[in-house]
Amino acid sequence: MSLKFYDFKMAPSPRRARIILAEKHVPHEVVEIDLRTGEQMGEAYRATNPNCTVPALKLEDGTVLTDNAGIAIWLEETYPEPPLLGTTALEKAEIASWQFRVETEFGMGVASALRNSNPAMKNRALPGPHNFEQIPALAERGLQQVDNFFATLETRLGGRNFIAADRLSVADVTCFVFMDFAKVVRKQPGDEHVNISRWRDSLRQRPAFRL
Amino acid sequence: MSLKFYDFKMAPSPRRARIILAEKHVPHEVVEIDLRTGEQMGEAYRATNPNCTVPALKLEDGTVLTDNAGIAIWLEETYPEPPLLGTTALEKAEIASWQFRVETEFGMGVASALRNSNPAMKNRALPGPHNFEQIPALAERGLQQVDNFFATLETRLGGRNFIAADRLSVADVTCFVFMDFAKVVRKQPGDEHVNISRWRDSLRQRPAFRL
Repeated sequence: MSLKFYDFKMAPSPRRARIILAEKHVPHEVVEIDLRTGEQMGEAYRATNPNCTVPALKLEDGTVLTDNAGIAIWLEETYPEPPLLGTTALEKAEIASWQFRVETEFGMGVASALRNSNPAMKNRALPGPHNFEQIPALAERGLQQVDNFFATLETRLGGRNFIAADRLSVADVTCFVFMDFAKVVRKQPGDEHVNISRWRDSLRQRPAFRL
Repeated sequence: MSLKFYDFKMAPSPRRARIILAEKHVPHEVVEIDLRTGEQMGEAYRATNPNCTVPALKLEDGTVLTDNAGIAIWLEETYPEPPLLGTTALEKAEIASWQFRVETEFGMGVASALRNSNPAMKNRALPGPHNFEQIPALAERGLQQVDNFFATLETRLGGRNFIAADRLSVADVTCFVFMDFAKVVRKQPGDEHVNISRWRDSLRQRPAFRL
């Protein structure tokens, strides 16, 4: 029995794991869970992942990993090449720091902007099993966070090819995915973000980033 | 030259690193940065950590790590015993998942509740160099998130001594620190949270958790 990857092609979150699987050439089966029809809430998927989210990764022994944090490190330990979480202590530290910044300063900004404004996400202002009402002011704040993060990232990428290390890391994967997804809140880097554009164009050449 | 740990005894964020340093018996010097007088914004500290935050850890070669994500993994790699980030792939995955949940479902709930309501934090609704106005509705949401997390954690700790693994991990450290800090928004586990209380009482016996 091989790894089973529960995916949904149009969602940003599973795309992060999808790119890691591809960069590491990890053999796996794909099970597409259609979020548009609410398949993630159905009994069948709930039995696999009670959190009702994608991505999920079912291991050969039946254990199911249910978030990107767990999936990324499990893949790194099990398929170490190429390393995406760093090799030296310092490299690992830089990657962990940038991964955290990308998640909290960028990803949460986009998520706040989307979830607190989109009529389709009424009462779904936070992910997970509990409902939360939308807060319009928080959507505004999310957009501001995205602008701030673009400025931070533009500076960081001056003279660098990758965000955290001298080679591709999970921080690049996460940031690239969130950047494509930021289209949903009409935020994209502008002409002034030359370093970001160079970095992004270069990642776009990699087959894994076209998935 | 030894490791220099930039700390502030009353703040929750540096306490996380302080406990890890103590659990691993890592030799280090402490430099106390007085956040009450704004010492973190002064020229001297800014030259060490341009982010003006604690914790920071200055390594022997002068490199400065400026957040808990980076500090935790650097310490784990450099002082592996006792392991706090796991040893097997699966243990590492579980710890990373729970660490992320504790950060986003609990820590951010407390931070939202505090930063969006406390008059002393007007315009400081998010940490970092940019100012953000407070959003009162977000303070309410933060309190709800904390309640939800207590319910999640109570279930998780049924029959378990630690949150993520069969031994202490960073997820326990982070959660314990946030739980003490949640007093600032008047949220504490109640009588119904028997598993949380047992877990917390047990951690309180460890000298590192009294720091």
